[in-house]
Amino acid sequence: MNDLFLRAARGEKTERIPVWLMRQAGRTLPGYKKLREKYGVLELAQTPELAAQVSSEPIERLGVDAAILFADIMLLPLALGVKLEIVDSIGPVIESPLENKADIERLLPFKKNQVQYLGETIRLLRSQLEVPVIGFSGAPFTLASYLIEGKPTRDWARTKQFMFDQPENWDLLMRTLSDAVIEYLSSQIQAGAQAVQLFYSWVGCLAPATYRKQVLPHVQRIFSALKERKVPRIHFGTDTGAMLEDFADVDCEVIGVDWRIELSKAREIVGKKTLQGNLDPSVLLCDWGVVEKKVDEMLENLGNRKGYIFNLGHGVNPKTDDSQIKRLVDYVHAQ
Amino acid sequence: MNDLFLRAARGEKTERIPVWLMRQAGRTLPGYKKLREKYGVLELAQTPELAAQVSSEPIERLGVDAAILFADIMLLPLALGVKLEIVDSIGPVIESPLENKADIERLLPFKKNQVQYLGETIRLLRSQLEVPVIGFSGAPFTLASYLIEGKPTRDWARTKQFMFDQPENWDLLMRTLSDAVIEYLSSQIQAGAQAVQLFYSWVGCLAPATYRKQVLPHVQRIFSALKERKVPRIHFGTDTGAMLEDFADVDCEVIGVDWRIELSKAREIVGKKTLQGNLDPSVLLCDWGVVEKKVDEMLENLGNRKGYIFNLGHGVNPKTDDSQIKRLVDYVHAQ
Repeated sequence: MNDLFLRAARGEKTERIPVWLMRQAGRTLPGYKKLREKYGVLELAQTPELAAQVSSEPIERLGVDAAILFADIMLLPLALGVKLEIVDSIGPVIESPLENKADIERLLPFKKNQVQYLGETIRLLRSQLEVPVIGFSGAPFTLASYLIEGKPTRDWARTKQFMFDQPENWDLLMRTLSDAVIEYLSSQIQAGAQAVQLFYSWVGCLAPATYRKQVLPHVQRIFSALKERKVPRIHFGTDTGAMLEDFADVDCEVIGVDWRIELSKAREIVGKKTLQGNLDPSVLLCDWGVVEKKVDEMLENLGNRKGYIFNLGHGVNPKTDDSQIKRLVDYVHAQ
Repeated sequence: MNDLFLRAARGEKTERIPVWLMRQAGRTLPGYKKLREKYGVLELAQTPELAAQVSSEPIERLGVDAAILFADIMLLPLALGVKLEIVDSIGPVIESPLENKADIERLLPFKKNQVQYLGETIRLLRSQLEVPVIGFSGAPFTLASYLIEGKPTRDWARTKQFMFDQPENWDLLMRTLSDAVIEYLSSQIQAGAQAVQLFYSWVGCLAPATYRKQVLPHVQRIFSALKERKVPRIHFGTDTGAMLEDFADVDCEVIGVDWRIELSKAREIVGKKTLQGNLDPSVLLCDWGVVEKKVDEMLENLGNRKGYIFNLGHGVNPKTDDSQIKRLVDYVHAQ
């Protein structure tokens, strides 16, 4: 059993840097692409044998030190009865975006049996793999913003309008989603997930004070509730540079950051927590010499490697050549 | 003559806070909307009488303390011979995105007479208005990213690939664009612009080290070259929270920030420079009570108002009701 990732997540110095990459499962890998000719993303994620196959592919092919469950953050809203589609080259599109209290009250309570397939995928992975399995969930702000916007956005204006004009309903929505996230991640841990990541895309679109008041308390509650499960908990967000003090102010083992902040600066803010990140995924589209140089600069800037997990700052760009990813993993392993 | 804006830009304490709003000209105002039924954006910007009319409308209607030239950042690339269209609900679309050195060398040298219409607009505005006229230009990174991506993007992956794989060509492109920006802004100042803003959308997509090495030196050169013109120079960017030390490291009078950073924290970093910003434009879509509360919180967080100009953190959202904007301007004036 390769437990480098788990030991680094717990703050230990490891004999070499553990590596995993967000979106390592799916997107660029040939086995996944072949499956996608036949199956939709949600269908793949909801079929344990196939989801396990997709989750395992990067372990065999890339040699990463942890497996991330192949899933979609929209699986949770689906379990709450939200009608949605994943549209190619757009993303999740919600049939009836949330507008008011009645819409929130129509969300079904989360029931574990609606995501039994995830537990089954995790059990399959645990029986097959020699590396830890990471479970994950979209964070409540991210989920809420999808439900309110109805589709990907560049300015989150509808979400903010909802937060500011209907603070009580926002709070209700965040509590509802947080309850579900706690159950969703707990069920993954019960099935065997050895770590979990709460995944915050774009939370950096908020003013720090807004994050502090209308998002952070809910995130804190999620992390506190998961503490008793005794697995490392990762809090990841993009574009959190200017609010990292607040973002990191949760009871968790690992903070994941993107490339917008230097690791040395993130380390100062994050303190003793393990740091995860933060290569810009665009770098992997470049010539190999560029990748090597950027990794060297990152690690030099980081300094002490105790309590550090190598990752990208966001998901693998779908245009990335998988041989380049393999080379990256090998290169970091050799450091 | 209302010179509040100019005095605040020079760091003075003013008897009340000067206010102007990015994208105050155009977008939401009725006179502009009426003109847009007949004319395209570029046509409006290139016709002095019409551009002056659009630039003046917010002074009369909203009571702001400065006029921003109605223009488009793509006017400069047009003057360099780039073929492009402004497509509704998408933005600028470039006919042949830049890929290599030859593409850069095909850019024409900037000639002032290609933007004579802007000088004429500025002269008209100066003769009509009792508030200062601000000229502006897209910053070289922003211009370069449009020219390379060909259309708006969410990840700037092509731009970064270009920067990293072809650093010498990137440097050439940045020098070429910076030369043009210097001439472009100088010609606006010569025509009568009493301040200029270098406008950086999304420069926060870069890692701080990348900004420092591949963007900042060019911006520093632009600001140094404009110093002799003796008008206040504003350096504005979105999402600069985690790189603000570097972003503010130019010889200019005013730093503009978005809502992702608190004004008190920005003040610490920016030092004696005047601060401009930073209300989230989404707030203006909310009930009036929300606007009032957010402005109160902003100003309380700011503390000392010496050397401060009120603005949004980015352009007015096109869905904003103009009566709400008017009310905002009046409210800030009453503080």
